[in-house]
Parts: sequence; structure tokens; C-alpha cells
Amino acid sequence: MDAGALADAATLANRLLTGRSPQPVHGAVRLHATGPALELSATDGTLTLRLTVPATVREPGEAVVPRRALAETLAGLSAPTARLAVEGRRLAVRVPSARFALPLLADPWPPLPALPPPAATLPAADLRSTVAAVAGAASRDDALPIFTGVRLRTTEAGLSLLATDRYRMAAATLPWPSTTPLETLVPATVLTRAASAPSRADEVTLHASPDLFAVSWPAGSLLTPTLGMTYPDAQFDRLLSTTPECVAELEADALAAAADRAARYAGPHGRVTLHVIDGAVLVQASDPLHGESEETLKATVHYGQGTRHYQARLLADAARAFAHAPVHVRIQESNRATELTSPATTLRYLVVPMRPTEAT
Amino acid sequence: MDAGALADAATLANRLLTGRSPQPVHGAVRLHATGPALELSATDGTLTLRLTVPATVREPGEAVVPRRALAETLAGLSAPTARLAVEGRRLAVRVPSARFALPLLADPWPPLPALPPPAATLPAADLRSTVAAVAGAASRDDALPIFTGVRLRTTEAGLSLLATDRYRMAAATLPWPSTTPLETLVPATVLTRAASAPSRADEVTLHASPDLFAVSWPAGSLLTPTLGMTYPDAQFDRLLSTTPECVAELEADALAAAADRAARYAGPHGRVTLHVIDGAVLVQASDPLHGESEETLKATVHYGQGTRHYQARLLADAARAFAHAPVHVRIQESNRATELTSPATTLRYLVVPMRPTEAT
Repeated sequence: MDAGALADAATLANRLLTGRSPQPVHGAVRLHATGPALELSATDGTLTLRLTVPATVREPGEAVVPRRALAETLAGLSAPTARLAVEGRRLAVRVPSARFALPLLADPWPPLPALPPPAATLPAADLRSTVAAVAGAASRDDALPIFTGVRLRTTEAGLSLLATDRYRMAAATLPWPSTTPLETLVPATVLTRAASAPSRADEVTLHASPDLFAVSWPAGSLLTPTLGMTYPDAQFDRLLSTTPECVAELEADALAAAADRAARYAGPHGRVTLHVIDGAVLVQASDPLHGESEETLKATVHYGQGTRHYQARLLADAARAFAHAPVHVRIQESNRATELTSPATTLRYLVVPMRPTEAT
Repeated sequence: MDAGALADAATLANRLLTGRSPQPVHGAVRLHATGPALELSATDGTLTLRLTVPATVREPGEAVVPRRALAETLAGLSAPTARLAVEGRRLAVRVPSARFALPLLADPWPPLPALPPPAATLPAADLRSTVAAVAGAASRDDALPIFTGVRLRTTEAGLSLLATDRYRMAAATLPWPSTTPLETLVPATVLTRAASAPSRADEVTLHASPDLFAVSWPAGSLLTPTLGMTYPDAQFDRLLSTTPECVAELEADALAAAADRAARYAGPHGRVTLHVIDGAVLVQASDPLHGESEETLKATVHYGQGTRHYQARLLADAARAFAHAPVHVRIQESNRATELTSPATTLRYLVVPMRPTEAT
């Protein structure tokens, strides 16, 4: 078989699954030679990965070996071909210039869940970029699991993706070329990994059952349990219907960089101020200990002026999600969330301003 | 003044000096506007850095501000020019689109040691690459300070650089275009930083006094206390006179990569075996728990065969120091160190084999 293809599969298995479980089988990969291919399967106790590598199978068989050892052994080898053979209690991996023998795991291989039924097939690049932009708004705090997920839901407009940690919210819509509805809540970190896994595939298929969600591509699949909770969709839909008090159009990259620089001067609460004036947005921060900053970003401003305070980090994250594009910043009345959108994407990003009491 | 040049100087100051000292002045930089330039000076309590940036000085003056804040504020700005002014208890930094005010440090600025007399001027690239290769053999363990240094010493052959942690030793020689002798012991980590600091200079000058060592270039200098100890030069010179029992010529990169891969199979003592045979070097490792590996590296072999055991990490480090070059591996009799050399460089690298008692 092709040594490079095997190395890529082993590296992907090592990268997509975590190595946190103390159980040896959760750090292993099962190699199953059957028909015209080598099938790799692995689980870290939560996720299930399946990969297929073309191979000439002389004798069907299987072996379970440590995932990381296989990946690191193959990674640096620039060999054209590899041969695998079970020899006693070892898996022999032979390339023209080297031979490695990995110990076989004796533990019984756990039953792995089957792939749920397919819902739709999407362009891989669209899913990857949209998930990357939306998933960043999810919480990293496992104490409130519902906010660590990305909500996937088919609506009339297509597949809606939404994530929020309660202080910010990101939402986007992808075309949905299917009549099968989808409604699920997937851990944001897993969805990001799954969407970026099939680096060489043009299309990916989403699969769902009430408890499971999977992304598959021609050479493999990654399957995860869902967060399985009901989600307050109606409440979030209301937040997404915005009424701007003032709108500023400027470059997303400039806003992100200015917010990052202002963060140095943003004091113990990390507070930066956007001051929208005629033709410009001022990014201001001030702290008795660390000094003051004020940057002027050229902007096209509609409907008057406005001033709001934000967590510097949340504002920078929001602007960065629109990388290299113009962004429209819509300030809403009183303490309602500020919305960022761009003509270049369906992404909508809401950031909750800091209250005046937090801001002083 | 040029905002990019100021940003580069602030970034260099932040990178070359450590931020470990609890004293505010050790995390600060002094800006001194005088004549046609802005002089930056800074110390982290051990090292002293001086940099000069061309500037139009309207009014001479000075300001002491936090090093990291200045560097991070300027780093991402793509401004053509910057203006500095002391305003009250702030240093105002103005670029066309922004204004920052950094708090002035009120603490008295410490007296900084003057640059020792110059000894010789060398090509910057030669010093950088030679120091990078030799300094890696120094110890990181401060418990034996003498082994954390690089010995610099002029001999008839030129400037000798030598470092050892007792398990391996690296030595190289640079042409010495001066009649001034040099004999000093410089902390390896500092020498590495100093040699790589003047990224845009063609030439650097070495300065030394009994207690101080400095590298200077047209736009600045970095000064360090020496490790100030006598060094067993004669003993190390004896180790460098080698008598090979067998010699193998092979690619350094292939040896480093094979040693890295074998490390996975090298067991609790990290032991790999080089087995030199006719036309090849076998890199072998074996461990009951993690399996076995054997790689065959094509080699030109002189004077028969040989087998030695090594720490995988030390062998890989030694081979990596000869990156992209052919390397000659000279095994000496019994337990004497194995020497690596290359026709491409004056570098000589000795690695002490593991004893048979360690090896079983």
C-alpha cells in the first residue's frame, strides 16, 4: 500500500481523537485488511473515527495497535510503499529502508456505533469556513454544556448554524440541498475538527440521528454523540431581528487589530469603547495603571452617532470572524446587542455591550 | 521617526531580555532622544541592551516606559511615522491614525555597565550559524553553571567555540581577523540570542573584559556578565583528538530522522543502537512494551564494523547540528566518544556512548 496514504490516515486519527482516556483501547487504532482496502477505526471513548486507505490485501486480517506510535513512526518516513503483517504478538510495518514492530493490544475491541442515516451532502470548503466562523462564539465552559454546542437546524433559508456563550452569538446559513430536515446540537470543538478533517474531499455528508451526529467524506467519517438538549431557538431568533440605532461600515481586520491593541489599555474589566462619529469609528481604552489609547478607523456611518463599551476580547473575536472583508457594525438602542454583518457572507455576529455599571 | 524601525527595536528589546525580574525597571526601556537619534536602553537585571533608531529630535529628553507595552502597542500598527512626546506623567506615542499614552516609570534608572573594549569584527551570519550549532551541546542545568556556557577562546587556528554538558561536546572554529586574544565563558542561551539579534547587520563585533562579554552591531549591542570561571581547556582538547575504529559517511538529516523515530522504541533508558556494517548503518531500538525498530541508512564505511549504544536524543541532536550536510560518524575504541564531523563545516560533535551496564 501507499506509505504516504497510511501515514496521513494515522496522523489524522491521532489528531482528531483525544488521548485523555486511561483505557488503552481509547488510545489505539484497529487496522482491518479486507477486500481492496485497509480500514482504520478508532475511538477515544467519545468520538468514533473510520478511515479507508486503498491497499492490496494478500490475506484478510486485523490488528489493534497504539494510535500515536503508528502515526509518529510513519510521519517522517519518505517511503513509497508500506507492507503490514501480523507476526506473533506484533504488527510488522515494513518500508523499503526500515522495519518496525508494534505491540498488538490484547484488550477486546469495543463495539462502535454505526453511522446515522445521511441528511445532505454539502461543499466541504463552505462547511469548513462557516463552522470555523460560528463555532468560535460557543462557550469553552463545560459547566453549561448547552452553550458549548453549535446548533444545526434546517429552516426555509437553508441550514442554520448558531452558537452563543450568552455574551456573544454567531449565526450563519448554508444552502441545504436536501428535503431531509436536520435539528441537532453538536459540541463546537468536535464540529470544528470534523469540518476540517476531510482536507482533500470536495464534498462532505452530514448524518444525524436523535443521539448521534457524523460528518462523512469519501475516505472516512467522524461520529460524535450530540449534546442532546432542547435549544431555545425562538428566543435566539428574536435576538437576531435587530433594529440599528447607527451603522458603521469599516474593514474587519482594522477593527480586530485596533481592539487587540486597545486591550492592553483596557484595564481590569477589559473594557474598550467604540465611539461612532461622522466618517470614523474611534476605538478607545483607558486605565490609570497602563495608560490610554485612541485609534481612528475610517468608516462610512449611517443614522447618526453612537457609543458603546465592549469586552475587548469579544469585540476582536467578532471582527476576526469576518477576516479580510468589510464589516457593518450595527449599534442597537440601549443595552441591546451590537450586530456585525458583512456583504461577503451570511455570518451575523452579536456582541452584548458592557453595562454602564460594569463600565465604570 | 520611522514607526516600523521603532516597532522593530521595541520588539527586539522585548524578545532579547527576560521578563522574570519583579523590579519594574527590569521590565522597562529607557528612550533617550539626543542628537539625530533615539537611543533605547534596557536591562532585565542581568543583560544590558542598547539600540539606536534614527529620529528627528525636536527637543532632547528621556522617558522610561514598560518594554512589553511599547512593543505590543507598536507591533501591529502599519503606520509610516511615529511621534514621541513626554506629556505630564505619560509618554504620548502618535501615529497618523492613533494615539497611545504610556505611563512613565518613576523609579530611578539603574547605572548600566559600559561596553567592554572590542576584540574583533566577524561576519554576522558565520557567528550566528556556528553559535547555533555549538550552543545546543551546553547543559540547561544551572546546578553546574560551567556546563551552561560556551567557551570562546582564540587559538592559532582562530576563534574556538566549545560547549559540553559532559555527555556530548560540540566544537567549531571561526576565522579570527584580529591580533587581540579572547578567552571567556558566556552563557549559551545568551550567546545564542546575541548572535541572532542583529538580523539585518552584515558584521558584528565581539567585546570582552574579564567579567563582561558583549556583541555589538551598527544599531545596537547586547552585554552579559560572563560565567567567569576557569575552564579545563586542556582536558577537552585531549577529548577532541580522536582515533577512529570505524567511520561511516551518511546524510545527517537521515540519521537525525531515524534516531527520532527509533526514540519511540528506545525503552526507559532511551537507548538506540548504531550498527555499522558494510555499506550501511543500521539504527536499531527495542523495548518489550513499545516494540522494535530497525532502519537501514546507506553509508560509505571505512575500517570495518562497529556497534555502539547511544541516548536517542543526544544522537539526534548531534546529527541535526549538521543539517542538510553529509556527516562522518567516527566510532572510537571501547567507550570513547563517537565523533561526528562534516566536510561542509569546522563543527565537531562528540557523543558519549552508553555503557554496556546502562545498555541492558
